[in-house]
Amino acid sequence: MGISQELARTPSPVLVVGTGLLGASIGLALAQRGVDVLLSDVSPSALALAADYGAGRPVTVTDRPVLVVVAVPPELTADVVAEQLRRHPDAVVTDVASVKFQILARLEAAGADLDRYLGSHPMAGRERGGPIAARADLFQGQPWVIAEHPRMTPRALELVERVALDVGAVPVHLDPAEHDRAVALVSHVPQVVATLLAGRLLDGTPSQLALAGGGLRDTTRIAASDPGLWLQILAANAPAVGDILQALRDDLDRVLGALADVDAPGARRTLTEVFLHGNEGVRRIPGKHGTDATYTDLVVFVADRPGELARLFQEIGEIGVNIEDLRLEHSPRAQFGLAEVSVLPERAEELARALGERGWQLSR
Amino acid sequence: MGISQELARTPSPVLVVGTGLLGASIGLALAQRGVDVLLSDVSPSALALAADYGAGRPVTVTDRPVLVVVAVPPELTADVVAEQLRRHPDAVVTDVASVKFQILARLEAAGADLDRYLGSHPMAGRERGGPIAARADLFQGQPWVIAEHPRMTPRALELVERVALDVGAVPVHLDPAEHDRAVALVSHVPQVVATLLAGRLLDGTPSQLALAGGGLRDTTRIAASDPGLWLQILAANAPAVGDILQALRDDLDRVLGALADVDAPGARRTLTEVFLHGNEGVRRIPGKHGTDATYTDLVVFVADRPGELARLFQEIGEIGVNIEDLRLEHSPRAQFGLAEVSVLPERAEELARALGERGWQLSR
Repeated sequence: MGISQELARTPSPVLVVGTGLLGASIGLALAQRGVDVLLSDVSPSALALAADYGAGRPVTVTDRPVLVVVAVPPELTADVVAEQLRRHPDAVVTDVASVKFQILARLEAAGADLDRYLGSHPMAGRERGGPIAARADLFQGQPWVIAEHPRMTPRALELVERVALDVGAVPVHLDPAEHDRAVALVSHVPQVVATLLAGRLLDGTPSQLALAGGGLRDTTRIAASDPGLWLQILAANAPAVGDILQALRDDLDRVLGALADVDAPGARRTLTEVFLHGNEGVRRIPGKHGTDATYTDLVVFVADRPGELARLFQEIGEIGVNIEDLRLEHSPRAQFGLAEVSVLPERAEELARALGERGWQLSR
Repeated sequence: MGISQELARTPSPVLVVGTGLLGASIGLALAQRGVDVLLSDVSPSALALAADYGAGRPVTVTDRPVLVVVAVPPELTADVVAEQLRRHPDAVVTDVASVKFQILARLEAAGADLDRYLGSHPMAGRERGGPIAARADLFQGQPWVIAEHPRMTPRALELVERVALDVGAVPVHLDPAEHDRAVALVSHVPQVVATLLAGRLLDGTPSQLALAGGGLRDTTRIAASDPGLWLQILAANAPAVGDILQALRDDLDRVLGALADVDAPGARRTLTEVFLHGNEGVRRIPGKHGTDATYTDLVVFVADRPGELARLFQEIGEIGVNIEDLRLEHSPRAQFGLAEVSVLPERAEELARALGERGWQLSR
């Protein structure tokens, strides 16, 4: 189920340097497709653990990888790529760092053999969501950016595409600068903004924070991210992130100006326009979640005891309607929760009626 | 299930003025507890609809409410409260607007009978979460702020507390200015920040936005909120919101300064501190979601077809472990999703083993 059992398109052996979340997941996914995966890590215990989990076998001096995947922290990536290009003069080398332009520029400055280097960036689902753990399906259905540059050979492009496809990802082609601007907008700036907003909560009292709801939790969730990793990412993508944050600061100044005197001419118009732009911006985000109007939401009252959710989903299954998305909302003070179930609009009425007949309490 | 069947503590009749989400939900909840609820609305069709749904009966000229709940838009609230105080000289009047200080100040300036007025603010779950719809359980387990002021009578306090308890809410006592500072921090500023961030997406290309993930969706979700309502809220709470946004702007300026030259002395330290403060801030938010370390998360691979989620939850029910929280993550490009199931830490290993034995694929 899930992981394709087709033969791998990626030739063997592939060397994965760095057995963190991304490296170990790539190793697992390729090994499951039959690729001979070699592993290397500065930490012998991390290396042994990844090998134990089936991500590959420790590389030896006689191994000759066809492809090297560098999966080390962003600030080390350029140096490790350069070293691997020297050490394996016939191999193509890629990396999976979340910034691309600076790495290419550093390799160029160092006189590296850029023909055999082609950077990439898998937008791993868990990196983009909750808690993380290495696994073979990490990349399934996710974009895998291939950061094409003029000096890469067709062979480099072919090998990196094969890896992306073999781990179940969808190759997306963007040049390094374009990639960095894109992730600045959809990932790095949201991270900084969520972090700054969460930082403001340090001024809040417990009785103020007791009024916090889902809106605050959602807007600040990613502020729990690792400072060390983000320092490296921001340092490597400072110009693109800075440009967008500067524009955001200008927008914020307009809001502050309007709030300073809400009865001044134009103040309410400014605030309204800011909110309308926000509405429009959020509609531009693709995907199933959030403001997507593709599905209809039903809100079902679920008692907070074992088996109740099971019964709900079993009965929805019996009714024969697929759940497209789902949010659970617990009340911190009551023994129940609300399940917000998203279904295709044409099935919503049928499902609501059938659930009602079975005694479920639905919101109207 | 859920709604208590105890007799109401609130005396009859109660007049609810304004039959939008909050007014209709209060009417439904009180009527279900046996309170005689009277309804009034400037829109005859909204009034008739609320009555049809069981939220109460249209008020007549001979009715003499003991308590009036004003549930109209924030900018109309002070005027409608003043009118109700005049019209019903024996009744206590409350309101449910999400700002409190300006309304009290306006009533005081207008010479209203403040002894009988006591403002409140139910932190309704759905207002704080996804799509909204009036229902009796809207307030269940949620904080209901009672904005005490020096001139209120004990009777006013008693009646408002009874309503809060009867609809299942938890009374929280804050003075009006304190309330406004609290909601500025946990609700109004997060709304402005999410809105400004979403507004920046208007500069993004479709290929940039195609890289968007859960982090961006979460941080911008509430940017889909109603501009008209938010204009009223911000206008009525401008000083408190402005103060926090000004502090946020100062923080942002420090980040911009550091990004302008990340190799300058102190730049990396500034960025690291900003991220550490964000980590600390997000940990201060109470509740089950987000960074709460009370639960252990298991990630289960679920095929995207009817019945699969049902089977998962049925089997979790059979295993006998309660699900404390749940997130579903669909891949936009693949026929499956990931269910992140939160359980008590001491049950996690047992559940993981039992699910594995039943053939479920779990993330490691």
